[in-house]
Amino acid sequence: MPDNHARRRTALRTRLRERELDALLVVDLRNVRYLTGFTGSNAALLVHADDDERTVLCTDGRYLTQSAQQVPDLERLIERPCPPALVERAAAKGLRRTGYESHRVTVDELDVLRAAGGEDAVELVRASGLVEQLRVVKDDTEIEALRMACAAADRALADLIEHGGLRPGRTEREVARELEGRMLDHGAAGPSFESIVATGANSAVPHHRPTDAVLAAGDLVKLDFGALVDGYHSDMTRTFVLGAPADWQRELYDLVAAAQAAGRAALRVAADVRDVDAAARGVVEDAGHGERFLHGLGHGVGLEIHEAPALAKTGEGKLSAGMAVTVEPGVYLSGRGGVRIEDTLVVRDGDPELLTLTTKQLVVV
Amino acid sequence: MPDNHARRRTALRTRLRERELDALLVVDLRNVRYLTGFTGSNAALLVHADDDERTVLCTDGRYLTQSAQQVPDLERLIERPCPPALVERAAAKGLRRTGYESHRVTVDELDVLRAAGGEDAVELVRASGLVEQLRVVKDDTEIEALRMACAAADRALADLIEHGGLRPGRTEREVARELEGRMLDHGAAGPSFESIVATGANSAVPHHRPTDAVLAAGDLVKLDFGALVDGYHSDMTRTFVLGAPADWQRELYDLVAAAQAAGRAALRVAADVRDVDAAARGVVEDAGHGERFLHGLGHGVGLEIHEAPALAKTGEGKLSAGMAVTVEPGVYLSGRGGVRIEDTLVVRDGDPELLTLTTKQLVVV
Repeated sequence: MPDNHARRRTALRTRLRERELDALLVVDLRNVRYLTGFTGSNAALLVHADDDERTVLCTDGRYLTQSAQQVPDLERLIERPCPPALVERAAAKGLRRTGYESHRVTVDELDVLRAAGGEDAVELVRASGLVEQLRVVKDDTEIEALRMACAAADRALADLIEHGGLRPGRTEREVARELEGRMLDHGAAGPSFESIVATGANSAVPHHRPTDAVLAAGDLVKLDFGALVDGYHSDMTRTFVLGAPADWQRELYDLVAAAQAAGRAALRVAADVRDVDAAARGVVEDAGHGERFLHGLGHGVGLEIHEAPALAKTGEGKLSAGMAVTVEPGVYLSGRGGVRIEDTLVVRDGDPELLTLTTKQLVVV
Repeated sequence: MPDNHARRRTALRTRLRERELDALLVVDLRNVRYLTGFTGSNAALLVHADDDERTVLCTDGRYLTQSAQQVPDLERLIERPCPPALVERAAAKGLRRTGYESHRVTVDELDVLRAAGGEDAVELVRASGLVEQLRVVKDDTEIEALRMACAAADRALADLIEHGGLRPGRTEREVARELEGRMLDHGAAGPSFESIVATGANSAVPHHRPTDAVLAAGDLVKLDFGALVDGYHSDMTRTFVLGAPADWQRELYDLVAAAQAAGRAALRVAADVRDVDAAARGVVEDAGHGERFLHGLGHGVGLEIHEAPALAKTGEGKLSAGMAVTVEPGVYLSGRGGVRIEDTLVVRDGDPELLTLTTKQLVVV
């Protein structure tokens, strides 16, 4: 979709001119992909502040064909390594004030860029996070990719349960592997992060990795996983009970579900991210479990699994329509078990759009 | 194995003292793992130049238990973010000349470190690649992990073929998925990189990614894949023919096999890496296909899939016993097909040790 990418570059160029930059060197591959559609593993982009026809994508010879197909609308430079080659280009074209992604470029790499530009020809100006600021609000193409990623995860989970994949006697690792395989069946390129499958007392560990621990009757089983589609990440957590829930499990579940609903209800345009966190956290605190909710409420999600905004006590900023975020409160009773419930949603005027559609009722399997 | 890690830290301390550093801040997670055994996703290490008892591992609260189990022999600091916390510690302890990994620390991160140290208390000194230099020569524990990773890949490939997994009518994607699943069956934590399955004309693309292209009778099928075990990566390529090989396929295969044998034979202690590349490349050039061998002969492999040394025209340095490298010549006939044959080996006094044991005879499936 050249149109989308061209529109994003246009928005970026406005920001470059505001900062009196002649160009921006983009080295982060996700940012390159966002601005051009190129998906290869080696690339950099020199965005001209005034004229898209003078923007140049650089990659290496392995991607000659692919880059021509994916980025028909930009000049290409086939060279290696790309970042210094593009700074040389900036020098040759008189792009004196060239910004660079100082949050990605290492101290050693900056030396190489400076040598490529020549001290006098190019002034390399710090410019961190410019593309990431654009990426916070998703456009329709991005939301459609997130929708597909969430659907692949929803379907995989439904298949897993329908085929008896969650049952006593299986190991966490076996469940994770089946779940990840089923996401591939539904069009995922892969899992969007290392799946969490945590049974029994392990469910009280927020970021437990799957082990050979065996699922047992009466266990809480927490699944936190997602699918990767077109470079976009879904993120969902559901917690199940193997057999009839004990009273403490039911109470814990209902508490977290109430906190999660409060968090979703607080997802409004112009809401402060700290207030969204507080809306869910207050429910947990009122129940006396505040110190057992060990992490932030949620995070932005898109080309990265964790991106801005952070819905957390220490977060900053307000929500806008088109932001894609997770809402994922959890309460963890050390040594006994924990519950987390997580959705991916899009902030909209009015109610948010829910992308992860699996039920949040307590499912007894 | 605290002994291994302590021994590696001892070797590093010698290098710190040679550079008149009081300490080294290690932020690369693979380097942290190499020096401590810690496998969490967030950590940094402050290595004291004189006294291992004053070396400090930093991680966050999620890894309280895991870090205590994996690193019982070092002081731990539980804080977030880790790198500035450790520079503060360096300042408090009077470690004036503290090195940092300038090949990993970004320009923005360096500001944060400087603020944490205070301009006067700590002089942050560039120190890139010190741990990587140690990692080039593998110790016995590392070679055993590589051996297990290569064995998982060998066994997965044997299973794939025995169960008819390579046959006309399947897609590249299906083959990749089965191969990766079978590596998990044999103890891999996952694939060591995105598997390459390339059939027919796709085999002429050196780094083709699996698509829905269907394997057809008469195709060359190239599989380049590896397993990850204990953090170590295996890397192997084999090329098959689906049915009786045509003359050109047989000739191409024999040529690449001869080049690969020449490359393996040149893997000798004290050999210049360019000479190893030239030994294999010469065979291909003599056959008139020099310009169809599009990449270097091989690369080091260990905690990263690509690490030093580079066996290439542009490589530098000489081989030492204990280096683990790939030898992977390829010849690619655009639009028709390509052959690559790759092993992972360890340089030894005398003949190298072959870790990937799958036959290199042309296998007709």
